[in-house]
Amino acid sequence: MSKYTIGVDFGTESGRAVLVDVADGREVATAVYPYSNGVIDETLPGSPVRLEPDWALQDPQDYICTFQTTIPAVLQQSGVDPADVIGVGIDFTACTMLPTQADGTPLCNLPEYRSQPHAWVKLWKHHAAQPEADQINRAAREVGEDWLDRYGGKISSEWFFSKALQILNEAPEIYHAADRLIEAADWVVWQLTGVETRNSCTAGYKAIWSKRDGFPSPDYFGALHPELAGVVSEKLSTHIQPVGERAGGLTEQAAAWTGLKPGTAVAIANVDAHVAVPAATVTQPGRMVMILGTSTCDMVLGTEEHIVPGMCGYVEDGIIPGYFGYEAGQSCVGDHFAWFVENCVPAAYQQEAQERGLNLHQLLEEKAAQLKVGESGLLALDWWNGNRSVLVDVDLTGLLIGATLATKPEEIYRALIEATAYGARIIIETFQKNGVPVHELVACGGLPEKNRLLMQIYADVTGLPIQVSASQQTPALGSAMFGAVAAGEPLGGYDSIYAAAEAMAHLKAEVYTPDPENQAVYQKLYAEYVILHDYFGRGANDVMKRLKGIKANARK
Amino acid sequence: MSKYTIGVDFGTESGRAVLVDVADGREVATAVYPYSNGVIDETLPGSPVRLEPDWALQDPQDYICTFQTTIPAVLQQSGVDPADVIGVGIDFTACTMLPTQADGTPLCNLPEYRSQPHAWVKLWKHHAAQPEADQINRAAREVGEDWLDRYGGKISSEWFFSKALQILNEAPEIYHAADRLIEAADWVVWQLTGVETRNSCTAGYKAIWSKRDGFPSPDYFGALHPELAGVVSEKLSTHIQPVGERAGGLTEQAAAWTGLKPGTAVAIANVDAHVAVPAATVTQPGRMVMILGTSTCDMVLGTEEHIVPGMCGYVEDGIIPGYFGYEAGQSCVGDHFAWFVENCVPAAYQQEAQERGLNLHQLLEEKAAQLKVGESGLLALDWWNGNRSVLVDVDLTGLLIGATLATKPEEIYRALIEATAYGARIIIETFQKNGVPVHELVACGGLPEKNRLLMQIYADVTGLPIQVSASQQTPALGSAMFGAVAAGEPLGGYDSIYAAAEAMAHLKAEVYTPDPENQAVYQKLYAEYVILHDYFGRGANDVMKRLKGIKANARK
Repeated sequence: MSKYTIGVDFGTESGRAVLVDVADGREVATAVYPYSNGVIDETLPGSPVRLEPDWALQDPQDYICTFQTTIPAVLQQSGVDPADVIGVGIDFTACTMLPTQADGTPLCNLPEYRSQPHAWVKLWKHHAAQPEADQINRAAREVGEDWLDRYGGKISSEWFFSKALQILNEAPEIYHAADRLIEAADWVVWQLTGVETRNSCTAGYKAIWSKRDGFPSPDYFGALHPELAGVVSEKLSTHIQPVGERAGGLTEQAAAWTGLKPGTAVAIANVDAHVAVPAATVTQPGRMVMILGTSTCDMVLGTEEHIVPGMCGYVEDGIIPGYFGYEAGQSCVGDHFAWFVENCVPAAYQQEAQERGLNLHQLLEEKAAQLKVGESGLLALDWWNGNRSVLVDVDLTGLLIGATLATKPEEIYRALIEATAYGARIIIETFQKNGVPVHELVACGGLPEKNRLLMQIYADVTGLPIQVSASQQTPALGSAMFGAVAAGEPLGGYDSIYAAAEAMAHLKAEVYTPDPENQAVYQKLYAEYVILHDYFGRGANDVMKRLKGIKANARK
Repeated sequence: MSKYTIGVDFGTESGRAVLVDVADGREVATAVYPYSNGVIDETLPGSPVRLEPDWALQDPQDYICTFQTTIPAVLQQSGVDPADVIGVGIDFTACTMLPTQADGTPLCNLPEYRSQPHAWVKLWKHHAAQPEADQINRAAREVGEDWLDRYGGKISSEWFFSKALQILNEAPEIYHAADRLIEAADWVVWQLTGVETRNSCTAGYKAIWSKRDGFPSPDYFGALHPELAGVVSEKLSTHIQPVGERAGGLTEQAAAWTGLKPGTAVAIANVDAHVAVPAATVTQPGRMVMILGTSTCDMVLGTEEHIVPGMCGYVEDGIIPGYFGYEAGQSCVGDHFAWFVENCVPAAYQQEAQERGLNLHQLLEEKAAQLKVGESGLLALDWWNGNRSVLVDVDLTGLLIGATLATKPEEIYRALIEATAYGARIIIETFQKNGVPVHELVACGGLPEKNRLLMQIYADVTGLPIQVSASQQTPALGSAMFGAVAAGEPLGGYDSIYAAAEAMAHLKAEVYTPDPENQAVYQKLYAEYVILHDYFGRGANDVMKRLKGIKANARK
């Protein structure tokens, strides 16, 4: 009798459930629920309250609706008997967090707080806590907090304590009314199991927790704001569980929502990017996973602890139990090409694409693929959205050099792809130089499916072979795998994520292998990239920051 | 009784005659003749002979046809009695040169040479003589020829001796058959008057002649090629006449072509850019004329001789008799914006322009004009076609810095305009620092009519007031003025170009005045431009040249 597991992936605009065969990872059924309140960035639902710029909220009811609609849908589509579903795993965007009462009730569900923006879920891309992030970083540097090194010297406005401190600063009544401040990832697991748990992935990557040192001290938090001193003991939990553990079993209520059996195993929560790693077959060091989408997330496992300068962070047990999970990223990849296509491609190309039934990306890829390496004479710095890793500087901007009157759109398009590949290579080399080996790449996300040229360029630039995940929904598959692990072998699941990956995760057969001739030319171009990268990125000429300053003044 | 004068302006694609009232410069009638053989860059007319890349030829018969069609046309349009036309002046592109027999017959008119490309007119933009230019420059540096300093340290492949040496190298039979090598400007005057003359403008700016030192020595030419030693004495003339003199009177034949009276005064030939200076009211030092078209030509007069590093050249009596005429230029201005509009503006803008009855330039200008100075955060180096003045380096390329995912097409468009303005300011400051005063700008050419935003940006960036020539065909007006000077006061003309300019040249009333607030921001942006200009242009990082090297290899 086949057994099944369900992964639920909570994205920015929608939630998605995938029902997977435990034996081989086959994706049997998929259902998507577009959040009815989506990303809340203008006015609160059912309220005239307008949000400030940079705010981005969500409605927790949308997460419950995701369970209520998508799980019954995949059961129905597949015809699978709920008794044969042995586990459920979830992954979430992060840091996406909310204030709740002691029983888990979101404050925004209470009539008295419904028109208070700070009572709602703060989505990962809520960027209004930058002053708080600045304060957190400044204070940490001043007192020499060790954890700064783990996070490339800087934490982000997107992270947990930036958001928590913003609540305290701007809406102290909400901060005080909140018995818990919790990642949405952990909150949805709580809703399924009735048990409040905290996962090692969001705690480590977004909330400055480490297995060895725990959270920063009450003294440090107290220095930021006297009332923040007790934030961890009062509103979080110091019991952090590694990913791969069982959080609990489905409650009667959650069983009623989903149509699954009460007691079905539920895994400790996970993050969408990190959960994709084992789903891309990676459970050992040396093979870096690149999730190539609008931005890029790079993840690699290590057996030892190394300070790798300029990375997003590393967390012990953060991705796969027993390893240090190292994370880096590029803040502008798919977004880069989308910007170009929207703003810089002439009507004649639009028309050609239309006539030939292609989209503009396909047309540009086709034309760009006909160029020889180096033929355009162009080079770009991939900083249209700042630099997330190695330099960790949001104030860097994009650069294009080498343009002539003969420069064509496809040449610029290719130069932008190449720039992101050079950025990837700098990240890889930084890992390698600092003791974290990388000798093979595994790609997943939307881009590898769409752009073969990009994959070949990445192989040629990095000099590493690349394979692509077989699944087109790796996060949901990864969550399903963790659901099977939560169930365990006796119930027809697996005893470890290694065993689950061995059976359930697959790669496509095709390998993108570096072409030695292209590699030789890219070697020269990359050398030029590094010179410009260091000149503009490491302080020799801070023109990008000065231009941003002039820009900020002009807009006042 | 009113008197009239005719200016004939020989352009790249057509010739144009303008009949002008001597009293006040009023342009009474205009006629254009599009050359029937245009720019010859693929095959020779009536022949299967294919040209190499970078070749650009013309047919001298097209020049005669210009006289034959346009002058009768302006006479007919205006109803002016030919007896009241007191003079004719011409201006030409340069260096545009041809080999002829002793009587002026172009070699390409002889059946035996008609299928030989080197027998035809080499147009200014014939760029196939680069190896010869390189040799000329190398040899001059080796023996320390003084004249190098007058031309920014380098002469161009477009210039007279580059082209002459190419004929000798590649078609010695043509070189030997040529009794004369002559600028087309001088050749058309010869056709009108029956007298071979050589003008100081093309001789000085394009053929390394100076009033004080004459041409380079036979030794120098002989070192380039033994048979070139006698080029000046055998095929040119050492009798160079300053612009403003009378070349001769119309022959019977030319009178028959044109419908004018035999003996009508014809002025010494001139160059299209330089002849525009007095037509833009400038006959004194301090006011720089900018001819803003696809590229830009800057001209300013000086009373003293100064070596101004990196300029195109200076020639005594080259523009206005009695002054040193200093010339500089930017190789990519209108071409720059045209490139952008053709390659980088999305279909949505095209559609908006169409719906609103605008062209893309107008739409972009409108949108760009709404931006505050510095608001885009962008900065560009205007080197899409190399750098003609100050750095004198064709291997420099374009750069754009400061791009973000929010960057819009009109922001880039404005940044490109600003970049050309910074380039203009560097030229102006280089003149000023080296003893050639510039305190006011006068603009003419196609762009000032079309783009008010550009004019205001130039005023704001340079900090100088700008006026615009009243005439939209300044070269032809300038030629007509020189025609009136050739006739002289007794015949109803003028005794000098000063007097002619006083009466016949006019500016529009509007003055573009620097806005102090914009100036202050541009001061900061210009400082950033200068840092990048020097970093990429003066050897600190020769990445642009290395990218060109990689490009050249890729195309092999």
